[in-house]
Amino acid sequence: MTGIQDTIDYIRAHREQSMQSLMQLCSIPSISTLSDHRPDMESAVDWVVERMSAVGLNGVRVLPTGGYPVVYGENLGADGQPTVLIYGHYDVQPDDPIEEWLSPPFQPTLRGENLYARGASDNKGQIAGVFAALEAWSQAGGGIPVNIKMMIEGEEEVGSPNLASCIKERIDLLASDFCMNTDSGILRADQPSIVYGLRGLAYFELWVHGPKSDLHSGMFGGAVHNPANVLCDLIAGMHDDDGRVNLPDFYDLVLPVSDAERAALANLPYDDESFRISAADPPHLFGETGYSSVERIGVRPSLDVNGIYSGFIGEGSKTVLPAKAMAKISMRLVPNQNPDDVACSLDEYLRGHAPETVRWELKKLAHASPVVVNRECVGVLAATDALETVFGVAPVFMRMGGTVPVVSILSDVLGIDTVMLGFALEDDGIHGPNEKLHMPTFYRGVETYANFFANLAT
Amino acid sequence: MTGIQDTIDYIRAHREQSMQSLMQLCSIPSISTLSDHRPDMESAVDWVVERMSAVGLNGVRVLPTGGYPVVYGENLGADGQPTVLIYGHYDVQPDDPIEEWLSPPFQPTLRGENLYARGASDNKGQIAGVFAALEAWSQAGGGIPVNIKMMIEGEEEVGSPNLASCIKERIDLLASDFCMNTDSGILRADQPSIVYGLRGLAYFELWVHGPKSDLHSGMFGGAVHNPANVLCDLIAGMHDDDGRVNLPDFYDLVLPVSDAERAALANLPYDDESFRISAADPPHLFGETGYSSVERIGVRPSLDVNGIYSGFIGEGSKTVLPAKAMAKISMRLVPNQNPDDVACSLDEYLRGHAPETVRWELKKLAHASPVVVNRECVGVLAATDALETVFGVAPVFMRMGGTVPVVSILSDVLGIDTVMLGFALEDDGIHGPNEKLHMPTFYRGVETYANFFANLAT
Repeated sequence: MTGIQDTIDYIRAHREQSMQSLMQLCSIPSISTLSDHRPDMESAVDWVVERMSAVGLNGVRVLPTGGYPVVYGENLGADGQPTVLIYGHYDVQPDDPIEEWLSPPFQPTLRGENLYARGASDNKGQIAGVFAALEAWSQAGGGIPVNIKMMIEGEEEVGSPNLASCIKERIDLLASDFCMNTDSGILRADQPSIVYGLRGLAYFELWVHGPKSDLHSGMFGGAVHNPANVLCDLIAGMHDDDGRVNLPDFYDLVLPVSDAERAALANLPYDDESFRISAADPPHLFGETGYSSVERIGVRPSLDVNGIYSGFIGEGSKTVLPAKAMAKISMRLVPNQNPDDVACSLDEYLRGHAPETVRWELKKLAHASPVVVNRECVGVLAATDALETVFGVAPVFMRMGGTVPVVSILSDVLGIDTVMLGFALEDDGIHGPNEKLHMPTFYRGVETYANFFANLAT
Repeated sequence: MTGIQDTIDYIRAHREQSMQSLMQLCSIPSISTLSDHRPDMESAVDWVVERMSAVGLNGVRVLPTGGYPVVYGENLGADGQPTVLIYGHYDVQPDDPIEEWLSPPFQPTLRGENLYARGASDNKGQIAGVFAALEAWSQAGGGIPVNIKMMIEGEEEVGSPNLASCIKERIDLLASDFCMNTDSGILRADQPSIVYGLRGLAYFELWVHGPKSDLHSGMFGGAVHNPANVLCDLIAGMHDDDGRVNLPDFYDLVLPVSDAERAALANLPYDDESFRISAADPPHLFGETGYSSVERIGVRPSLDVNGIYSGFIGEGSKTVLPAKAMAKISMRLVPNQNPDDVACSLDEYLRGHAPETVRWELKKLAHASPVVVNRECVGVLAATDALETVFGVAPVFMRMGGTVPVVSILSDVLGIDTVMLGFALEDDGIHGPNEKLHMPTFYRGVETYANFFANLAT
């Protein structure tokens, strides 16, 4: 393969341009969950369309969905070579709490080795990295060595609610040998890794209603059940003292982890203290009794309050007994749990525990099934080699606590395996303030993608 | 007393003007707890100063405090007559949730018999009623028949933090025979009542801190203790299954209610169903086992969440594990509890129950002691007669669940009793959206104040 060295040379000579291109993309506040940002979402679509064409893809088009569209492009000129479906997303999380950002979330800012911006790591840095690798192959390597289909969606951060039907309607267009999913990360900057398991997600909004309007807490406090107190009671009852989720039948479908897998997870170059620090330095770690932190986020399910609100939260004191209270509650699921079953568990718990002094309402928001990836898939083998070539160290295999809904959708609808190949780091602060991308890792990522395509070509 | 009939005639002929004056006052958004409203607070002070002078008070002045000032005026021309210290407040609660108001909170709007505006009932309607009665005595009754000192403060809704020191520094100026406090209400529009007991208040802000910034709930959920979940656990533990407050030593100082008082409270023309409806129609009532609703708000302490916040509360789903969570928690106190002791109870509870996986912080906000009023005080007797004259029904005697910090301050500093004489109704929605004042009751209130002054004159 003569093209790879020229491709790598091009990548190294064009680092500045790759970063500028990424900064352009990161300056677009494409927040999918907030409807005010619809124009920004359209700007992000335009950017992806233009970039796909510039790096050598053709047939670039915007696939409409019931929500934000998927941008598609392809290059099918590599006769006899495998076809890779590349996945990424152009939407990002909201930027609150805005006051905690050291630089504006949509003014990408370099400090030291890191580029700070919302979406820099999740997932704009990864898709910009693929674009840089494709551009290098097109411009310097003699053309992209495998067949590429690329789909960049706009609703990953809200649980990809329209992606399954979009894919089902375009099975021929999207048919591929396997998927390379960029929405992933590695263990450490000096230790590459490949994720072979992803948790699922079931996300809910729970409302508790008491009196029809806010009351004076003096005139009524003690004689009217306070919806905020009731909500706290309900949430407190969702875990037992051992940190286990206390919903009916919640663990019934959870696959036990084999001793061999527990041993492999225990051997990962991972320790609780470095994990604690990467988790933004809480006083102590905490989780289900009997499992390590790696197991707790990889092979065990969890339940978290993502947000809670009731009553008066401004400065000072307001003596109100609130009319209602709301919590956003989500669960991470592991094989063989599924979102519908745990929704039933939560519903049954509420029916059994909510007092008759209030009314309650449970809304289902995002959901996705957990998946385990086939480690013998040709994509995983090509990624393993590429990572070792660029990082000089063989990758370790890991489970990831997060959720990438498209992986289970592609398995179900197109019947294809996925290799997770992205370069986010655990301390990138994705979903929080001051999200960043480690630029040296980004540049290694670009080279890894370039090698990955080379490795696939036969 | 020839003047009373002319005074009443004047009041009835000037109802429209009284309402217009009240609407002026209610159009000023004098929200003491929000610092943005400082200019509005100054406008309210100006309005009270002008109105005091217009209704026949002199020596009108603005008494500075460590916070918002007290407006003072007097009329000491009734030789040999008792001196009444009249109390009210010109500040109001915040107007949130603003989207639930049917008309703008600071554009007073008549619908049917009610005037809707923030502060219409608490307490601007009551002080406007006193002004109308004083104006009538001054203009038509031959002069105010007793000596008046009037103090209208601006920090009642934040717990009157500077009032005690303001009064201590002006003992001679404020010396009076007793206080008539307008910040009160009656049982029903057709059943006047006099409040002889008020609960105290201890208001706190509790923060729980975990990781130093928000985390991705997939990458860390299950392995990092979620501060929002911890806060819910802590709040849930603050009550037992019988609806009792579950803090160490919390009930130690609570005076048991005598059988005689329980019997008197049980005889009030009050039933749980009408109470439930006045409490904005919750599905069912709830409170401490073994006590009636009247007892629960009158003679028993309570603990309520006034507000709670953590994480993402916008539309849709954000999969964040929040860095911190906050709740505003207040307790209503009964004799002989006091705010300092229950603060110790709460602190001890948190020290005993907060897990080492988080840091927590407890801020003391407003506080006030509970009081019981002397029912034989000359003011109570004059008020009883005035209510019966105007309403045609003798008042009943009640405890009130709310807190009026000035009552205990005046008892402690000036050694005077207080008669609670205001005309708020239980369904006025004070502190909530769509606060209103029942105008027929307002007009009866003006006549009651006029008769009250007449009754006091010997």
